Amino acid sequence: MSHISPEFVPVFGDCIRMVREVLLTNDAQPFLISGSGTLGWDQVAANVIEPGENALVLNTGYFGLETYGANVTQLTAPIGGTVPLPTLTAALQQKKYKLLTFTHVDTSTGVLSPAAQIAQTVRAVSPDTLVVVDAVCSVASEEIRFDEWGLDVVLTASQKGLGTPPGLSVLVASQRAVKAWQRRTVREGSYYASWKKWLPIMKAYEAGQPAYFATPPVNLIYAFHASLLQITARADPSLPSLTQRLAAHRATSQKIKAAARALGLKQVPLQESEAANGMTALYFPEGVKAADLLPRLGKRGVVVAGGLLGSIKDTYFRIGHMGVTAVDEARGDVDKIIKALEDSLEEIKKEKGGK
Amino acid sequence: MSHISPEFVPVFGDCIRMVREVLLTNDAQPFLISGSGTLGWDQVAANVIEPGENALVLNTGYFGLETYGANVTQLTAPIGGTVPLPTLTAALQQKKYKLLTFTHVDTSTGVLSPAAQIAQTVRAVSPDTLVVVDAVCSVASEEIRFDEWGLDVVLTASQKGLGTPPGLSVLVASQRAVKAWQRRTVREGSYYASWKKWLPIMKAYEAGQPAYFATPPVNLIYAFHASLLQITARADPSLPSLTQRLAAHRATSQKIKAAARALGLKQVPLQESEAANGMTALYFPEGVKAADLLPRLGKRGVVVAGGLLGSIKDTYFRIGHMGVTAVDEARGDVDKIIKALEDSLEEIKKEKGGK
Repeated sequence: MSHISPEFVPVFGDCIRMVREVLLTNDAQPFLISGSGTLGWDQVAANVIEPGENALVLNTGYFGLETYGANVTQLTAPIGGTVPLPTLTAALQQKKYKLLTFTHVDTSTGVLSPAAQIAQTVRAVSPDTLVVVDAVCSVASEEIRFDEWGLDVVLTASQKGLGTPPGLSVLVASQRAVKAWQRRTVREGSYYASWKKWLPIMKAYEAGQPAYFATPPVNLIYAFHASLLQITARADPSLPSLTQRLAAHRATSQKIKAAARALGLKQVPLQESEAANGMTALYFPEGVKAADLLPRLGKRGVVVAGGLLGSIKDTYFRIGHMGVTAVDEARGDVDKIIKALEDSLEEIKKEKGGK
Repeated sequence: MSHISPEFVPVFGDCIRMVREVLLTNDAQPFLISGSGTLGWDQVAANVIEPGENALVLNTGYFGLETYGANVTQLTAPIGGTVPLPTLTAALQQKKYKLLTFTHVDTSTGVLSPAAQIAQTVRAVSPDTLVVVDAVCSVASEEIRFDEWGLDVVLTASQKGLGTPPGLSVLVASQRAVKAWQRRTVREGSYYASWKKWLPIMKAYEAGQPAYFATPPVNLIYAFHASLLQITARADPSLPSLTQRLAAHRATSQKIKAAARALGLKQVPLQESEAANGMTALYFPEGVKAADLLPRLGKRGVVVAGGLLGSIKDTYFRIGHMGVTAVDEARGDVDKIIKALEDSLEEIKKEKGGK
């Protein structure tokens, strides 16, 4: 299928419109570009901020900003926690920042940042600072109210909550962010990630016209279209709505976290309200290691991930429960996960007791 | 399928090895990155050349070099022709160039540049200048002898001669190009396209280990693997070898060009030896327009493209005949194209005559 074929053009246009629907925005500008989620950072760094301008980074996640010349100030949080809002307020009062960025769900710890409050704080203290959200691990599994919260950039990828194979950088920019880009005095620092190249393409496809800068990943756009039809419930009115989907993620998350609590397992996030709804990060019980638990879960058909965060890497594991696992109850994934966890821990206990 | 799954890792590694096979190189370094062919230019511009260094461009095609700070000198050729080798020699003698770049097959005109001779000229006159080939429209349809010709970068995409859906930037760098990158004094100008990030990933996957910088397009890598198995004839020893594939492209091309000549159609390339083997660009006969011919071909099941080059855009059309059309004779594509061309022109003649 050609990328300028009359059959393909409206499919691309629909994807752009449905991405707006998923993020609850009326007029923000989606950019769908062949690449991984990381390419979204090149877009931000090369378009939204100019060399020498200041960026405030909460915790981690500022891939590429320095490559393109931004001055980065980092505020760190305790492991499992987020940067306190008063600390953020103080930082914003001290210096003028072109943008602030934070990771909505930190995939390494399962910490959920209070996106609405962070955005609200920025708007109150430093209204011109752009709010850039790394939402790779949160779009379609956590609530994101783009317009209502006043976000400026949400960047993500096709393969997590959006349920499509990897290969598509999905970025949504507010009109305020687009205007900031239009006002730049220094040329965009990237060629492939330049909005000067891509904005006319996105506008053309949305208007039902093909346009060319670089070949879009046609087949992947079709797959993305299929996912979005499901997520927005356009495919079939009997499908859960986006609101219902997010509620299903919360319910699933609570069920798994409650079961973990009953088993005496401690979560990595320090506060229940800051725990992601699409994943659960749990410390191993004392004396138990990854090599004890993970293969036992695997034997029971449950694949979980090890720890990722440097200093506590070997002390915890991560369960993913986004997308179908949360939404399609008939699969019975949640009960299977809980049962596998219970049985594996019981088995370990018996063996250790027997030694 | 996860990008760190033990099943996926060797598939990625095989792709890297088979790309070397397709380009006839022993030790050049392939980079397979989620993105379009254009991303290859960001790789070249941000890694191989440094700000302030000189680039010599034959004709067109230097996407992004200036964005990353290179000084570009352009040598133009007449429409349908290439830059004469003495002109190239003179330019190389006048100034020191970090790299020279040319488009192997110009998709807008079907002109095939004499890649071997250009590379030979550079090696003779300015041995340190790196030879960068935009081979988007030529890999697997034109002969490319990477090592023998002494090329430094060949960049292409998955969706043309390589026969895979779009979404993969495919770039191969000589060890000389890799060393030039290692010697840079200015940091790479791109984050997503930085070889500092990607080289360890490519090396890890080739060695059978997963590694992470940005998520690779897993499903597309599987598709690419399937294409490469066919192109390298690894899938089935009864498949045509790469040599036979290229011969089939030449034979197909000659057949179509001979038929066009018999119909009195003039090619856009000025010299037969500089006409691409994967496509044919033909001027319309006098008095015939795109609107006369293209729909008539379409009715007969043959989709061709209009002209692309600004000044002669409306005076010619382009027939693609790469991949299965050239290799799989049983499809009968070539005869169908020729018959459609003959019948359409005959029909136009009758109608015009009847008016």
